[in-house]
Amino acid sequence: MAGRLSTTPPTGVAGENPAVRWRAWALDLDGVIWRGRRTIPGAPEAVARLRRRGDRVVFVTNNSARTPVQVVETLAAHRVTAGVDEVVTSSLAAATLIRPGETVLVVGGPGVRAAVAGAGAEVVDAVALARAGTRRAPTCDAVVVGITPDFDYAVLTLALGAVDAGARLIATNDDPTFPVADGIAPGNGALVAAVERATGRRAVVAGKPHEAMAVLVRAALGAPPAGEPATSGSEATTPIPGAVMVGDRPDTDGLFARRAGLAFALVLSGVTTASDLPVEPQPDVVAADLAGVVESAVGDHAGDP
Amino acid sequence: MAGRLSTTPPTGVAGENPAVRWRAWALDLDGVIWRGRRTIPGAPEAVARLRRRGDRVVFVTNNSARTPVQVVETLAAHRVTAGVDEVVTSSLAAATLIRPGETVLVVGGPGVRAAVAGAGAEVVDAVALARAGTRRAPTCDAVVVGITPDFDYAVLTLALGAVDAGARLIATNDDPTFPVADGIAPGNGALVAAVERATGRRAVVAGKPHEAMAVLVRAALGAPPAGEPATSGSEATTPIPGAVMVGDRPDTDGLFARRAGLAFALVLSGVTTASDLPVEPQPDVVAADLAGVVESAVGDHAGDP
Repeated sequence: MAGRLSTTPPTGVAGENPAVRWRAWALDLDGVIWRGRRTIPGAPEAVARLRRRGDRVVFVTNNSARTPVQVVETLAAHRVTAGVDEVVTSSLAAATLIRPGETVLVVGGPGVRAAVAGAGAEVVDAVALARAGTRRAPTCDAVVVGITPDFDYAVLTLALGAVDAGARLIATNDDPTFPVADGIAPGNGALVAAVERATGRRAVVAGKPHEAMAVLVRAALGAPPAGEPATSGSEATTPIPGAVMVGDRPDTDGLFARRAGLAFALVLSGVTTASDLPVEPQPDVVAADLAGVVESAVGDHAGDP
Repeated sequence: MAGRLSTTPPTGVAGENPAVRWRAWALDLDGVIWRGRRTIPGAPEAVARLRRRGDRVVFVTNNSARTPVQVVETLAAHRVTAGVDEVVTSSLAAATLIRPGETVLVVGGPGVRAAVAGAGAEVVDAVALARAGTRRAPTCDAVVVGITPDFDYAVLTLALGAVDAGARLIATNDDPTFPVADGIAPGNGALVAAVERATGRRAVVAGKPHEAMAVLVRAALGAPPAGEPATSGSEATTPIPGAVMVGDRPDTDGLFARRAGLAFALVLSGVTTASDLPVEPQPDVVAADLAGVVESAVGDHAGDP
């Protein structure tokens, strides 16, 4: 399970394994650290191995529902130690699109509300408003849509009214589905699609593979904060030497890595399987799981202190 | 209010008013007979005038929520007499895409459930199922999505599961919004967009301006039922001589008229105003309201028995 499967042709010296230079790690959560409620074997030990070496580690998730503190608690339950400032969520990315003092209608969970409040904005909770029978939201500067099981027609009506009255439309992420214990569940992309269709507007999406998340992750990995903005196109931005994104989805994690200037290590412990290969964008390394990627980077090549 | 505003250049003899030949009428409801709860002035009298002349009248609505009996009752409340067999709804159109004996997950109101049951299918009520806490629908042949204020994340999850397991995805209609007393509300198009995004499938849409509705309305207006199928493209099918669609939306009613082989009379008593003119498809007649269209057809030109 933990072996390195393959690498693409190295970008440096012929025959070189690109992983040996990685010292800054952006780790996706679902499909990399856990899958549903199950810890992916070897993942906690792999993270610990990187920490022993003094590598920088950042946890990156498109799940907007949890606050960073809740993500840290969930990581701890999977035997992974993390600091709150090592967690980057799509809610935090969405909050960078909000200005202090703005009034924001939030369709979403605690993670979105906390992030928007943390940006200095006034939060109007669409779910609470709808439950109270309110059909029309107060005037808002923006609507932020994140995944919530409380999404319903009344909430959609409030979002439509706010956007129709001039509010900007922001989505934490646009994943169409996400994996659950017994299959897949509708993702935030589905909720955003409903709001977009009703309003006739396109949402600005914050999470992977989009720009707001790229800016946050680059900063968390120690890249120069200014002067090298992530692009919103598909071209790579200025690469961060020695930085890698580890994820299970080429269409989000891989595209995100390219846009944020990171190498991309694809793991087959999530939604992508060996039968899906080859994939685009082309990964720098493909491994069975995080343990395999870390072994490739740390193992025999660089020594393991 | 009731005057005829203009006609496009006549298609027959130079100077001829095309309306004088209309003897079969497909009438949109919202924006033609009523607007919200208000009866549009002159509309009941205009319908009565057509009936006195012996014209064929069919009422055509994309609103899937009501059964034909409920539509007849609503028309009666607006002082318009109609028979149940004179009502064509998008639910009835959707039901033509269902085969007897099929099992159908219905996301929608009484109109959809009644129409699907009327097609000889077994109805599985997604809202009732979700309210009972069921997260996975039984195996279904099709999912039919129609507007319902009970739409929520649990219902969306059931629809995703059914389509993911192989069910066909059918939408009664895809209007993004519909008018309500204090503005606009999310239309079925928004609910369908959520299901489409989650499932990655495109729904077959039944209502105006799509094919299933065109087939039903042509039949109701007395066109040959076979041999001249409505097209799904934008080209006109074989025209029905003397038949007209009266509606307030060029993008649904006008396009529908062209596809179903009907003339198109645009009324300005709904969402389209004089400042929106000219519109595409080009109407054969533009009038302030239904009374104006009927006056144009019946008035001085043809005599009024």
